[in-house]
Amino acid sequence: MKKSIRQSFAVPFHYEIFFTENVFASSNDLFAQLVKSPQIVKTFFVIDQGVADTHPALTAQIQAYADQHKDTFLLCGEPLVVSGGEQVKNDNKYVEKILEATHQWGIDRHAYIVAIGGGAVLDMAGFAAAIAHRGIRHIRIPTTVLSQNDSGVGVKNGINAYGKKNYLGTFAPPAAVINDAVFLTTLEDRDWRAGIAEAIKVALIKDAGFFAWLEEHAGQLSARAMEPMQYLIYRCAEMHLQHIAGSGETQSGQTTGDPFEMGSSRPLDFGHWAAHKLEQLTHYQIRHGEAVAIGMALDVTYSYLKGMISEESLKRVIQLISKLGFEVYVPALSKQELLLGLEEFREHLGGQLTIMLLEAIGKGKEVHEMDRSLVLSSVEKLKEF
Amino acid sequence: MKKSIRQSFAVPFHYEIFFTENVFASSNDLFAQLVKSPQIVKTFFVIDQGVADTHPALTAQIQAYADQHKDTFLLCGEPLVVSGGEQVKNDNKYVEKILEATHQWGIDRHAYIVAIGGGAVLDMAGFAAAIAHRGIRHIRIPTTVLSQNDSGVGVKNGINAYGKKNYLGTFAPPAAVINDAVFLTTLEDRDWRAGIAEAIKVALIKDAGFFAWLEEHAGQLSARAMEPMQYLIYRCAEMHLQHIAGSGETQSGQTTGDPFEMGSSRPLDFGHWAAHKLEQLTHYQIRHGEAVAIGMALDVTYSYLKGMISEESLKRVIQLISKLGFEVYVPALSKQELLLGLEEFREHLGGQLTIMLLEAIGKGKEVHEMDRSLVLSSVEKLKEF
Repeated sequence: MKKSIRQSFAVPFHYEIFFTENVFASSNDLFAQLVKSPQIVKTFFVIDQGVADTHPALTAQIQAYADQHKDTFLLCGEPLVVSGGEQVKNDNKYVEKILEATHQWGIDRHAYIVAIGGGAVLDMAGFAAAIAHRGIRHIRIPTTVLSQNDSGVGVKNGINAYGKKNYLGTFAPPAAVINDAVFLTTLEDRDWRAGIAEAIKVALIKDAGFFAWLEEHAGQLSARAMEPMQYLIYRCAEMHLQHIAGSGETQSGQTTGDPFEMGSSRPLDFGHWAAHKLEQLTHYQIRHGEAVAIGMALDVTYSYLKGMISEESLKRVIQLISKLGFEVYVPALSKQELLLGLEEFREHLGGQLTIMLLEAIGKGKEVHEMDRSLVLSSVEKLKEF
Repeated sequence: MKKSIRQSFAVPFHYEIFFTENVFASSNDLFAQLVKSPQIVKTFFVIDQGVADTHPALTAQIQAYADQHKDTFLLCGEPLVVSGGEQVKNDNKYVEKILEATHQWGIDRHAYIVAIGGGAVLDMAGFAAAIAHRGIRHIRIPTTVLSQNDSGVGVKNGINAYGKKNYLGTFAPPAAVINDAVFLTTLEDRDWRAGIAEAIKVALIKDAGFFAWLEEHAGQLSARAMEPMQYLIYRCAEMHLQHIAGSGETQSGQTTGDPFEMGSSRPLDFGHWAAHKLEQLTHYQIRHGEAVAIGMALDVTYSYLKGMISEESLKRVIQLISKLGFEVYVPALSKQELLLGLEEFREHLGGQLTIMLLEAIGKGKEVHEMDRSLVLSSVEKLKEF
């Protein structure tokens, strides 16, 4: 008998992100192939109210698709339609409704919870799926630019609690993600635009070439051209996935490959410390992507005032953000509570404060301290732009 | 742009199980060394009421230990004392109390929730730790034989919901486990004995030599000799950990190494389908270990009636179980609802029904069908013993 036993193992995860159109059209067998197993598989659908409203035929289409593939999968009741946006993460009744359904329908660990909607609905449904039976298989069908290129392809879920964003959640890779481009056509302009913020983010910290591509296509993207948008989503998703898996060394020499974020570093949260706080301070009246655009503008300005990047680089970033139609300043940015966001961000990550700044376009650099007065000067400078 | 992007990664987990005595004695620096980091670490303690009652000095001892090591860690408030036993998993108010405390004390992902108690308290506290901030570090200090040799060293947590055991939970490896032998000295006889059931289980399905050792030491174990009990716990924990990590091929040729149980196989749940149902049917008046002893007696008898093991083997098993002081029959076993346990067990695992039976002492064999009438005959046979 030794004094201790050391346990070590690695848990392998695999999932695939599919790019398709009209996922529940009778001619599209992607979904049916995906869930196919020796037995008929149970599925439970959760749909974002916003999607149900703009795609009124969706529920009937899913029903027809299920009839067509009745030897492969069955629907457990009508889809559950839930409010979209942050509201669905602020009230835990939605998680409870899904848990209740899994209980009533006998949804087991080899069945699927399928969520169709924006990032908030996917986060909420993913959390319910992750804790019932210690994890029911979960398919995400993200319908916004933001969820298709960023949150929807990752491994996190969560709801808000105690006024803190994503306070309850887990790391739980989905069984699969299906990005259906058709959902993008019905987005409001604000949502179309908001998702582009995460593209700017990933370009700024990892890929100067992609940043130049964004500058070149900013006009087309603003005019809602589908082709560049589909490339933007593909490229963002690809970088996001590489980052999570750790296969791609970043230009900044960041060590990546910490999918469950056991360390304190979180480079993909560039611009997010202020963004999270702004969302809260505006009572979620601004979209996550809009808040990230402002948060990035703030941290890029801070990087400039700190002498890390040139004025030329600062101007390029602010110009791109503005050209895409984002604000770089909202009055809430001047609230004193903004600085509390730094401590809340540290607490959520745990350990040491770690903030990503820029040392060049395409090259992030982490710091562990933020000069409060320089943050306030950055806010002042943004007000001028 | 391809039609899909495949994501693959493995998440490494490491933790250590320590064997010690008097973990919070001033002379024992194990705990302080374990949590030591460059900063002073926050800790929040959760203590099983039963442990607090039998170790009335414990809270003061922890406080003194924290004072002694105040440069290493700090206590966030008084320890939270919670009911022990299944009750703590049946009411989600306990999870909420812990979550509330993490919010109030700003417990972050690099801080620790330390739970001291039996398996139920560890399961409940582990669940709270797993979902706050997507996972706060969690140290388990199991105080019963059962939790020290089985549940406490594994990767699961959970609470009950909708009348179903462990309906809500996650797979979340602990930061560390500390098995303190002193806690065993104050156990009630029932709890001392109950934990031995999991030792019989692991011996039956994996290690005939250990089964023979149990036969040889049954008298001493019943008489509460500490030395064989410490060996029993060490050996069970070792096999349990090997099973989870998959480093040890079992004698039955079982493929192991599925820590988060993505497949349908769960060999360590030998005897558990009936056990879970019996616990529920008796309103948790019988201990988990007592239920497992009966559940194993049932499945061993079934294995005999199915012609898989000899009458000699059956007798050895029933004799050992009885010699250790367990019942092999309770009236609830004859309830019709018992058979519902098979479907509930399948649902919890998901996929195909998979039940471990025996083909020899030390050699489990999985089957995917159970003959209902033979189960009832097994019950009748147990009634006779």
